Amino acid sequence: MAHSVSPLAPKSYPDLPPIAGVRFATAEAGIKYKNRTDVLLAAFDPGTTVAGVFTSSKCPSAPVDWCRDNLKGGVARALLVNSGNANAFTGMKGRNTVQVSADYAARALGVSPGEVFLASTGVIGEPLDPQKFEAVTKEMAGRLNPGPWMDAAKAIMTTDTYAKVATATVEFDGVAVSIAGIAKGSGMIAPSMATMLSFIFTDAPISSGVLQGLLQPLIAQSFNSITVDSDTSTSDTCLVFATGAAPIDAINAADDPRAHAFAAALGDVLHDLAILVVRDGEGATKMVTVSVEGAVSDESAFRIAQSIANSPLVKTAIAGEDANWGRVVMAVGKAGEPADRDKLSIAFGDFTVAENGERAAGYDETAASAYMKNEDLELRVGLGLGAGTATVYTCDLTHGYIDINGSYRS
Amino acid sequence: MAHSVSPLAPKSYPDLPPIAGVRFATAEAGIKYKNRTDVLLAAFDPGTTVAGVFTSSKCPSAPVDWCRDNLKGGVARALLVNSGNANAFTGMKGRNTVQVSADYAARALGVSPGEVFLASTGVIGEPLDPQKFEAVTKEMAGRLNPGPWMDAAKAIMTTDTYAKVATATVEFDGVAVSIAGIAKGSGMIAPSMATMLSFIFTDAPISSGVLQGLLQPLIAQSFNSITVDSDTSTSDTCLVFATGAAPIDAINAADDPRAHAFAAALGDVLHDLAILVVRDGEGATKMVTVSVEGAVSDESAFRIAQSIANSPLVKTAIAGEDANWGRVVMAVGKAGEPADRDKLSIAFGDFTVAENGERAAGYDETAASAYMKNEDLELRVGLGLGAGTATVYTCDLTHGYIDINGSYRS
Repeated sequence: MAHSVSPLAPKSYPDLPPIAGVRFATAEAGIKYKNRTDVLLAAFDPGTTVAGVFTSSKCPSAPVDWCRDNLKGGVARALLVNSGNANAFTGMKGRNTVQVSADYAARALGVSPGEVFLASTGVIGEPLDPQKFEAVTKEMAGRLNPGPWMDAAKAIMTTDTYAKVATATVEFDGVAVSIAGIAKGSGMIAPSMATMLSFIFTDAPISSGVLQGLLQPLIAQSFNSITVDSDTSTSDTCLVFATGAAPIDAINAADDPRAHAFAAALGDVLHDLAILVVRDGEGATKMVTVSVEGAVSDESAFRIAQSIANSPLVKTAIAGEDANWGRVVMAVGKAGEPADRDKLSIAFGDFTVAENGERAAGYDETAASAYMKNEDLELRVGLGLGAGTATVYTCDLTHGYIDINGSYRS
Repeated sequence: MAHSVSPLAPKSYPDLPPIAGVRFATAEAGIKYKNRTDVLLAAFDPGTTVAGVFTSSKCPSAPVDWCRDNLKGGVARALLVNSGNANAFTGMKGRNTVQVSADYAARALGVSPGEVFLASTGVIGEPLDPQKFEAVTKEMAGRLNPGPWMDAAKAIMTTDTYAKVATATVEFDGVAVSIAGIAKGSGMIAPSMATMLSFIFTDAPISSGVLQGLLQPLIAQSFNSITVDSDTSTSDTCLVFATGAAPIDAINAADDPRAHAFAAALGDVLHDLAILVVRDGEGATKMVTVSVEGAVSDESAFRIAQSIANSPLVKTAIAGEDANWGRVVMAVGKAGEPADRDKLSIAFGDFTVAENGERAAGYDETAASAYMKNEDLELRVGLGLGAGTATVYTCDLTHGYIDINGSYRS
């Protein structure tokens, strides 16, 4: 929290609209941090549907288990989130904490615990005292509002250096359907079939089944395509809440053409939030888009892009503004995916540095080095084998990362 | 090369014996470095057998391709190694360089190019001029000696901060058979079915087939069980040369009991060299032994141990002397291998920090923190699922790693 704002932070933030059917409040529960909000309570009108995707970790947090159970019902009336403690690897105590805190939220809002969704983020292994939520949920329930969203985004931050918000609107027959999303995340970022904490709210009337069907593939291209440090959190959670308050006919079938238009807008919000997480990567000074084409399949391209984006040697070279494409060759080679050294091409931005298995004929190190001084970089790899493509977003690896994570219990 | 010697460097080095049938010389070929040796030429007496294991990279270096071809013959008369340039991803030029430089070595020693083994280490993608080897191989061939081995180890260093040597002896019917080994490696260390550059010499009379059969499983427990930065080199090469000069009957069958005794000694040398590579890990200040037990299989235990040993968050916590076992839970969880959060136990040295899915009852943070100040650390994880075990050796992740790799073209 003491770390200065990422140099890659956005210069401005969008204004998020109120979402009909959603009201929320934040408060200081004093879980770990001093003098900042650390708890968010959101209330949803009756009829709100929900979809979610969670960490693929084999050691998920207690709130992740809780949400997975409640998701089966498909309806949501409340969301309670805290920062400062992940309630992960806390055994029976953790299971008790989610039960008791969901009860507090349910009682404060007059809903059932089975309709309350929970998320916790922060230190792992430290018991989280459910009493922290008793007074504060009651108090927050008395002052719920449809905004401002920036407050909600701030309350869920941990090592984040800025709040993450995104929005999109899609029109159906002249009626605007709105989407507002918030996310947190900065380290322990290599979501796998999941994301860091992210919550999306919309007034679209859409069934939970259709929503869940839309969400999964969109996550693949957004949160699952980013990596800061190759480490996957125990708490990754993305939940989408749809209040249905927008005055249009409900979207209850996956082949409803409006489902595609909605998915495009939802995809934009997820992508924006995912990029904001990378740009706040711990210690990041460069944002890197790694694009792989010509692989034998999209899956193969994705694994090669991940191998490049997770390579400490590639990431430190980028921090050093060095177009060190030899390390990219290394990362392609170690991915274990089909690759033919002698067909490989590599470009930084528009500068082709290697092709046909050796340094490009016209390679100009001065020009490539100048390009590397940019804050936003593109690294493009061509395999020359097939039509598989993938894009993964990452950041560089700097002294800042070591500062943040190499000090005692950050 | 300008980096100060690793704090984990050995306090003393063993005296390596001459190996009957092996003579060598080193020289300054001026490939990249100034004022230091960068080329090693070794000559082997007729009858020398050879075995080798190489990188699993899909983009191997030209010398790796060359050695794989020559290995089919099973006999070796020469080894030519250079540092400063890996001759990797150098296309047709690279293939020409290995052919021409092998010819130079063959001519200088009066042997066939098919019996010459080559290895190159250093920068990737830079053409390596074969003319660098013409005069120097002729000159070295005129002053071959059976020692000192330390000179050979020094000539193959790149970012290594100390030379790596190991030795073992095994007696058969009162006759001592000797093994001398050298290695280099400090970064780009996550050998996979292979190793960094390592060369082992013995006077054992042993067929290449038996030798190859012994080598593969020993690599799994030595070089393939270490990681510095999860990055796998294009040039990983381990070659074992057996001159057969020791006056004992030849070991030509895998079930010869002497093969097992020899394998144990060879395994000791490989293990010693592998540990020396980890202790010279770029920026390392702590050596960490990660032991996993109770996994569903040895393979599963190995993947979990690798996940822990490669996690930047675990490695930075260790650098910060923080017994941050929450990050170990994270790394177990992300490995994708069978794990039951509620059966998991974690210990740093003799300090059990977590068991049965939560913080250990008697956990004493002060004692655990005191333990973390040691230079050599043990991290033990129990899965409680089966009998699978594995051990992986690694180091911490520090500012030193960023210094070494985040500057221009190290």
